[in-house]
Amino acid sequence: MMRGRGLVNQLATLVVTILTCVWMTVPAYAEDGYDLWLRYTLLSGEEANAARPFVGGSVQLLADRSETINRAISELGEAGAAMTGLKISPHPQLVLARADRVESGSYLAEIRLVGAPEGAFSIRTARNGRIAITANDDIGLLYGTFALLRHVQATGSNEGVERFSAPAMPLRMLNHWDNPDGHVERGYAGRSIFDWWHLPEKLDQRMIDYARANASIGINGAVVNNVNARSFMLEPRYIAKLKRLADAWRPYGIRVYLSARFSAPRDIGGLDTADPLDPAVRAWWQAKADEIYAAIPDFGGFLVKANSEGQPGPQDYGRTHADGANMLAEALGPRGTVIWRAFVYSAEDETDRAKQAYAEFVPLDGQFADNVIVQVKNGPIDFQPREPFHPIFGAMPNTRLMLEAQITKEYLGFASHLAFLAPMWKEVLDAETGRMGSVAQVVAPAGLAGVANTGSDRNWTGSHFDQANWYAFGRLAWNPSLDSETIAREWAAQTFTRHPASIDRIANIMLGSRETVARYMTPMGLAHLMDTGHHYGPAPWVCDLPRPEWNPCYYHRADEQGIGFDRTVSGSDALSQYHPSVASQWADPAQIDPRFLLWFHRVDWNERLPSGRTLWEELVGRYDRGIAEVDAMTASWALLEDVIDPGRFRDVSQNLAIQQAEARWWRGTSLAYWQSLNNLPLPEGAQPVPDTLGEYRARRFPEAPGQ
Amino acid sequence: MMRGRGLVNQLATLVVTILTCVWMTVPAYAEDGYDLWLRYTLLSGEEANAARPFVGGSVQLLADRSETINRAISELGEAGAAMTGLKISPHPQLVLARADRVESGSYLAEIRLVGAPEGAFSIRTARNGRIAITANDDIGLLYGTFALLRHVQATGSNEGVERFSAPAMPLRMLNHWDNPDGHVERGYAGRSIFDWWHLPEKLDQRMIDYARANASIGINGAVVNNVNARSFMLEPRYIAKLKRLADAWRPYGIRVYLSARFSAPRDIGGLDTADPLDPAVRAWWQAKADEIYAAIPDFGGFLVKANSEGQPGPQDYGRTHADGANMLAEALGPRGTVIWRAFVYSAEDETDRAKQAYAEFVPLDGQFADNVIVQVKNGPIDFQPREPFHPIFGAMPNTRLMLEAQITKEYLGFASHLAFLAPMWKEVLDAETGRMGSVAQVVAPAGLAGVANTGSDRNWTGSHFDQANWYAFGRLAWNPSLDSETIAREWAAQTFTRHPASIDRIANIMLGSRETVARYMTPMGLAHLMDTGHHYGPAPWVCDLPRPEWNPCYYHRADEQGIGFDRTVSGSDALSQYHPSVASQWADPAQIDPRFLLWFHRVDWNERLPSGRTLWEELVGRYDRGIAEVDAMTASWALLEDVIDPGRFRDVSQNLAIQQAEARWWRGTSLAYWQSLNNLPLPEGAQPVPDTLGEYRARRFPEAPGQ
Repeated sequence: MMRGRGLVNQLATLVVTILTCVWMTVPAYAEDGYDLWLRYTLLSGEEANAARPFVGGSVQLLADRSETINRAISELGEAGAAMTGLKISPHPQLVLARADRVESGSYLAEIRLVGAPEGAFSIRTARNGRIAITANDDIGLLYGTFALLRHVQATGSNEGVERFSAPAMPLRMLNHWDNPDGHVERGYAGRSIFDWWHLPEKLDQRMIDYARANASIGINGAVVNNVNARSFMLEPRYIAKLKRLADAWRPYGIRVYLSARFSAPRDIGGLDTADPLDPAVRAWWQAKADEIYAAIPDFGGFLVKANSEGQPGPQDYGRTHADGANMLAEALGPRGTVIWRAFVYSAEDETDRAKQAYAEFVPLDGQFADNVIVQVKNGPIDFQPREPFHPIFGAMPNTRLMLEAQITKEYLGFASHLAFLAPMWKEVLDAETGRMGSVAQVVAPAGLAGVANTGSDRNWTGSHFDQANWYAFGRLAWNPSLDSETIAREWAAQTFTRHPASIDRIANIMLGSRETVARYMTPMGLAHLMDTGHHYGPAPWVCDLPRPEWNPCYYHRADEQGIGFDRTVSGSDALSQYHPSVASQWADPAQIDPRFLLWFHRVDWNERLPSGRTLWEELVGRYDRGIAEVDAMTASWALLEDVIDPGRFRDVSQNLAIQQAEARWWRGTSLAYWQSLNNLPLPEGAQPVPDTLGEYRARRFPEAPGQ
Repeated sequence: MMRGRGLVNQLATLVVTILTCVWMTVPAYAEDGYDLWLRYTLLSGEEANAARPFVGGSVQLLADRSETINRAISELGEAGAAMTGLKISPHPQLVLARADRVESGSYLAEIRLVGAPEGAFSIRTARNGRIAITANDDIGLLYGTFALLRHVQATGSNEGVERFSAPAMPLRMLNHWDNPDGHVERGYAGRSIFDWWHLPEKLDQRMIDYARANASIGINGAVVNNVNARSFMLEPRYIAKLKRLADAWRPYGIRVYLSARFSAPRDIGGLDTADPLDPAVRAWWQAKADEIYAAIPDFGGFLVKANSEGQPGPQDYGRTHADGANMLAEALGPRGTVIWRAFVYSAEDETDRAKQAYAEFVPLDGQFADNVIVQVKNGPIDFQPREPFHPIFGAMPNTRLMLEAQITKEYLGFASHLAFLAPMWKEVLDAETGRMGSVAQVVAPAGLAGVANTGSDRNWTGSHFDQANWYAFGRLAWNPSLDSETIAREWAAQTFTRHPASIDRIANIMLGSRETVARYMTPMGLAHLMDTGHHYGPAPWVCDLPRPEWNPCYYHRADEQGIGFDRTVSGSDALSQYHPSVASQWADPAQIDPRFLLWFHRVDWNERLPSGRTLWEELVGRYDRGIAEVDAMTASWALLEDVIDPGRFRDVSQNLAIQQAEARWWRGTSLAYWQSLNNLPLPEGAQPVPDTLGEYRARRFPEAPGQ
């Protein structure tokens, strides 16, 4: 009896404890998104039992201990404990092996690793049930670890994890447009994550979590300051701060780069010139590079915005971009890379900004030093919701080119609009240049740079769905042949839920979202219609800014008759900068994908398109479709209430409500303005425009970031 | 057999589950401080069993359901679940009772509630074991709930919880110097917590957690924008945003106030004057107030900074502060309050800024309308590490006066220096005015305003210990007779640990910390020695700013002979603004508390003080003691490594390292500068000054906030 009662009592206590525990695994408060896609939620009992031997943190190591290996092991430990509920896994069956420690003939030997690029890894399951991650280098083992964890998180199992993976390009980097005072240019997620003020004494936990997040998707470099750079960041005080970051990030394979202001020798060096051919200037940069490398042996190099939008550069001294870049490249030597931006529109051809960068850079092909990369934006204007790929891609066969994408959504609704950008980037990466294969192939020897969307907000990116763009950028830089849906689904599974129908729903919302934004903001190839300065909302009427190409009217060219920018031979002939095989798809207004129509052609409002509708009818229809799609996204999200934690569910819902209102604002404003020019009524069935043009024009947003 | 085996199997499963659960209660990552003092950590098993009936979320309700009651119940539910590990408490024994629902003679009847101010509550334990919280109003029940939870959190038990509590003053409010663009003036914790841009569509979870935190310590009002106000915040767009905040905060008893720019009728009202006696101006404010109250029936009122530091005001039209304040008071009527700041130094007496506010305001005593409060900073200059209390306190018997304290540490090392401010505020609150009792008694009919230290940082206040200043401000506004040690201990217990020796240690670090900062920054009554603009670090040499009272040299008046500001009858005679019984304690340099010496007296460097040391020796000794104390605080904190979670332990450690360095910077710079004037060697035994004055003067901090 006593024994029985004791057992019953024990059981009762256990039940109480279990009640406690079951409760404890449900977050007391809503999730805030800080953990990004590395949430490591508890697997089901069966899944946990199966996964436990592989993600438990105990591994068999065929490699020397290193800081990077330690990070892999601690990540496995934390992830395993969180996913399986046990801190230490019994019977560990995971092997981390350096390829050079594997005997030939062993089941761990992986032929594809021979000559594979840095970071490549193989994951294979042996007949004895063990899983082995093999790589040529420690960072490959860390990447392989994250790949395994990603797969288990996303699917609940190690079954079907990728067998072999190698990065498609050497540089996969973020560009932070962060100023040292904490302001982020085009940032919509709070202040800068970099606390320059308190570095080097204080290293915020965010700096570690940032590196973890980047490493988990293969990002391996970060330019930590704005391309509109301040020279004092090259001073010794800042080199000490940079060193602290570099030391913290090194185990995660992240190299530190710095935006360098070209006039630094004048600004802080005591010289009276920054002429790149001046020996004193060259000596100053050489000494500066040596000083940096003494502190940071793996310093990545300099990113330079020169002779663009008021930034100093070699042209101030009658020198070329190549003269400037090569001077810095010499200072760095084989230790690092100069990344020189092609985002210039200073000039030669006043008729079309879209042509200017090509005109300035293509003649320099072959003149850049080996350790110079020219960084080219995805399109020829400036990160618009849709642009054709930049004509420089493929046109500089003797220059390493890097693609610059914008992760922060300066022109796609800031953080509050849901727009998944992978399809936009894929559109450019997959584009055939007609000369050197696809854009992805053109940039393969260099890499991808993404203008970061990170900030001090608890969710890092200002909204939960913008985390997906950071994630997708990293995944595509590693492997540009991944399709958008794969990325969306694996992100959604890790970030929100593994419930299959919900993943379908979330992926579905994501995949069309960028097209939706393009429809209600800049349909049919329109571009650059946003308000001045902060770039928030529409202002197609603006036509009085000092430089012509700063004005929306310069881009849409709308009047009573028609709308659009003629870039064919009858107009600016920007089309001729593309290879004929490429240009031909855009040359004929009757053949062109209508999503590019007004980018390349000027069309009368009443001209009838292949669809059978007039341009005006087609345009209004696309605005309306954009609105309808946002409404549908919102309705679809609402059905996820029981699946998503309440905090993030509400955050996203609130953003979608803003997006619904702002999509209508874009449509209403645009239509009211076009109507003020063409005097056409709205096509039958279209919703009326709720406000007058005067009311739209009177709106002011003094609190919009970037004001 | 089968049955037995089943049981064993079941038990095995349970053990696995329990292992899981035990692990799950240890945070996977370091704490980030977001939960403030409302962490609700798990009690020990015995404590939890005892507390479960009282904090479980099930209550017996003798009150009608209201939003405020719902908040009390949900807080009990979340807190109870987290502290006791059970979501629903069996056998709830907590009663929430409105006094008007209690029958006389019941054990719930509380005589002290009769006529008690809004928010008062009683907590009593009945003979049947029940705990009853009784109040005249719902907000009192919420305050009582938080009081009970605070006590259980801090002590592990409901034993000894306070029996009765009533607020000492009606207004207990935060002043946010937050601009609508997200910048916080004198903010050291990131951006503003107010997302004006996305309001009203989006209400961040922070807005709820902010209200909870405030309600938990009795704060009942918030001025949501900077006293350097923008007029557009009075426009309809912003009233909609304010309404959303007010609706969210109402259940927590927080009323919304707005800083109003006095020139608004001109700026946004289409008038060509803001003259308070102009009928059109009066009508404009009346209509504006009506518009606000239509949206927010319990709008608190306006805070106004007028004719101070360039802000517009009634003096622009030859009117007085009373004219301006009364005009706004008439517009609000009995619905709200005008809070008019006395922080002016525009003028009459060029000889001493410390006298100017008194000179401008005291003559207006009795002229302010009933719903006007004059808000006076704690001291006559500007939130220095130590000032005597403001002479206006006690000198305006016919005016309601409110004390303005600064929670954000503009002059006490920003967020990185550890300085617990309760002792500083107590020094002022406890000060006898000689006319109307203590300062606390003078302000009792009005209240306390604190310039908030909140921001978007994950820990809210830029550092974990600065949370204590927010907490202490609220506790002192509720009850200024609380002593600093009580506040420090209850905060530390809730925020860090209930381990008794560790509470001793943390409280010990906190209690001397403000005095320590005063020692290494501005010992012996020195003040206003900080660098220009950002106010970061020392710059005693500055003497060339356009207005004399902006210059450190104006305050220290140091030269070859001596140092200090003679405010006695032989000098500016600011001393005469105090009641003779108060002034007498400061009049004699031989009798004065040496911590006020140089505030009131000019003293020769070589003058011998009552301590037997010369002024110079005494001064150096105090700087040195400040340094030694920071070192001791750092060493003491280091011993807490095993008690504090790793994230917060490291955060605090890193800040202390910064504080050690910056304390030495203050000492070194100050001594180098004083020596450049007095040519005296350092006293024997003093550490040398590590850098030259030139080196200290050359330091630049372009990334310091406020730059």
